[in-house]
Amino acid sequence: MNAVSDTRERILDAARRLIYARSYADVGIAEICAEAGVKKGSFYHFFPSKRDLTVAILDATFADLKSDLLDRAFAADVSPLARLRRLIDLTVRSQTEMHAQTGVVPGCQFGNLAAEQSTQDEVLRNKVAEVFGRLAKGLAATLTQAVAEGEVGPIDVAATADAMLAYLEGVVLIAKSRNDPGVLARLLPGMLDIRIMPAAS
Amino acid sequence: MNAVSDTRERILDAARRLIYARSYADVGIAEICAEAGVKKGSFYHFFPSKRDLTVAILDATFADLKSDLLDRAFAADVSPLARLRRLIDLTVRSQTEMHAQTGVVPGCQFGNLAAEQSTQDEVLRNKVAEVFGRLAKGLAATLTQAVAEGEVGPIDVAATADAMLAYLEGVVLIAKSRNDPGVLARLLPGMLDIRIMPAAS
Repeated sequence: MNAVSDTRERILDAARRLIYARSYADVGIAEICAEAGVKKGSFYHFFPSKRDLTVAILDATFADLKSDLLDRAFAADVSPLARLRRLIDLTVRSQTEMHAQTGVVPGCQFGNLAAEQSTQDEVLRNKVAEVFGRLAKGLAATLTQAVAEGEVGPIDVAATADAMLAYLEGVVLIAKSRNDPGVLARLLPGMLDIRIMPAAS
Repeated sequence: MNAVSDTRERILDAARRLIYARSYADVGIAEICAEAGVKKGSFYHFFPSKRDLTVAILDATFADLKSDLLDRAFAADVSPLARLRRLIDLTVRSQTEMHAQTGVVPGCQFGNLAAEQSTQDEVLRNKVAEVFGRLAKGLAATLTQAVAEGEVGPIDVAATADAMLAYLEGVVLIAKSRNDPGVLARLLPGMLDIRIMPAAS
């Protein structure tokens, strides 16, 4: 990696770590620069603002989540419902490992930012909504197959995918509020019960 | 109302409104005092810190939620499942009305603070966890009756209550991220599908 992209990556990684551990508002550019070991001029060379940096963090976080978790969960070697169960298992494991490493259940980076910034910053709200849309799309693709293969009866696939995403976000939030990753193992399997029926025509 | 309690109430109301509209970190004591029309000395007479004020806000918000929504939803004039449906309807209506008034879906004050502060402030995390516990207890009491009356089969009542609360929080968060109260009307009825089974003995 050359020096230019390395500097950008260091800023991105430091900011992601700090904001995920605390909150968007609580972490300033000076602290991000100190943590990354770069000067402020260097920060502004890569990112016009903390908001622009955060948009880049959301894309990087989604890319990592996709390769580390979603692609593994949704791999087609098992049935669609088994993939959803694997998504649940990997989510439990991920939050449990982070709790073991840091002492806190950090929650979901997208959900955290949605809660903190959606009423304040339209750019961040739209970016989180876009990422949630990508997550729901992955769930919807799996549900479409589950319906096609008869594992799940007739449902509104897009709405059920949104509902399952909402449940994932909610369970992670409750676990965070109790600082107890055991909440995830106990509750997340309930995601598979949720069905939103097609609207009556 | 006498002047002393009026001052305390004005601080509490102003802070609640400002924090709910934005976030905990984004609202400072100076702004709260300006909004409430009180001097800083007066603020510190009633509240040692913004955190102490926020703990008082959470209690006041729960008390209002209880009288405005929970007591109506959980009234025993209809069957337990019909009470849960009423809880869903009242929640949809509440967020939809706030959206109509302010232009934003504000989410849940407890969930917002859980997401923003749980990894940063143990006092606030514990307070939100306590309020979530009270909400889950109301759901659990209703579910216990639903099981007793045969409306719902055998479930782990406490875990199912937690799961329904998680779903409520998650759906409100997705609606907030899209700034679309229609999400609530479409998804919230899915809450009634969720069942956490008793652990195999």
